Amino acid sequence: MSDLEPDFHHTVPPGDTLERRVCTRCGFVHYDNPKVVVGSVVRSRGGILLCRRAIFPRRGFWTIPAGYLELNEAPDAGARREAFEEANAEIAISGILAVYSVPRLSQVQVIFQATLAGGFSPGEESLEVKLFDWADIPWDELAFPSVHWALGHDRASELGEAAPPFVNPQGQTGDLFPGGKPLTR
Amino acid sequence: MSDLEPDFHHTVPPGDTLERRVCTRCGFVHYDNPKVVVGSVVRSRGGILLCRRAIFPRRGFWTIPAGYLELNEAPDAGARREAFEEANAEIAISGILAVYSVPRLSQVQVIFQATLAGGFSPGEESLEVKLFDWADIPWDELAFPSVHWALGHDRASELGEAAPPFVNPQGQTGDLFPGGKPLTR
Repeated sequence: MSDLEPDFHHTVPPGDTLERRVCTRCGFVHYDNPKVVVGSVVRSRGGILLCRRAIFPRRGFWTIPAGYLELNEAPDAGARREAFEEANAEIAISGILAVYSVPRLSQVQVIFQATLAGGFSPGEESLEVKLFDWADIPWDELAFPSVHWALGHDRASELGEAAPPFVNPQGQTGDLFPGGKPLTR
Repeated sequence: MSDLEPDFHHTVPPGDTLERRVCTRCGFVHYDNPKVVVGSVVRSRGGILLCRRAIFPRRGFWTIPAGYLELNEAPDAGARREAFEEANAEIAISGILAVYSVPRLSQVQVIFQATLAGGFSPGEESLEVKLFDWADIPWDELAFPSVHWALGHDRASELGEAAPPFVNPQGQTGDLFPGGKPLTR
């Protein structure tokens, strides 16, 4: 099977209105849709749980526990699963913090607020897992712009300056960090 | 091409942890993920815009303007597109009302609050489009449970009884209407 490969071309299938990828070998029509990322800002006694990524992209950078929602999974269940996979952490979700989107990557991100319900340690996809006080958050070593947004929005919510649900900060598409810094691999 | 068909079997690809559909003819691995539905509760002078579906499933039943998010589309842009396609309606989105999920169908629904910015008329997928006063909403002829939820949550938000973001009502999975009535085709 390893020498088999699909041979896709782009065409509008009968009855459809948009171009889709269709395989010339088997006729498969690949309906590709945006993917849902679920994650959470997890608090414990004032600290915020961050994971240093053991995988690419952005290996070595810090993220909130987050990942792709699986089939037949509710978003809050997916966020709990990701916290467990990446940080061996059981969490209690309190509500939705934000819905962000990264149109270039066709991602919709549903981010929850949560509290830690026990201990934590690095999962397979993390090099290190740590609770950060607000003053110690490694802003220049965050993995993705939306991690930056989520930490800021969680803080604004904590201080009572604004209330969820938050969306992308005005004019931000997730391709650059606030301030304009690009992402490296 | 019409006599070509993929021949899928289920297997765990190398480096993966879950079973995926893999084609024996071309080796294509079909990573299938939940789909995002975007929609809006659209108000105009106290009335709420509903569309009577011209397509299956639930042809003849009433829905808020909603549909699948496309690749590279932001959720609010998708909700505006759907209102335009189904009701020829330009809308102004004010914020996120709710994030619902229907795990059995692997759907995540992002529902906005919006106001009508002009006129409306039935689009290709609608038999009829109408503004309903709250007292006249055809509760027994709504297309989907989440339409029922969204109308109730929008009302609670309007009356100041609760604030967005809302999620599925406690214990509801979207397979039945509130009260337990099943969906027909």
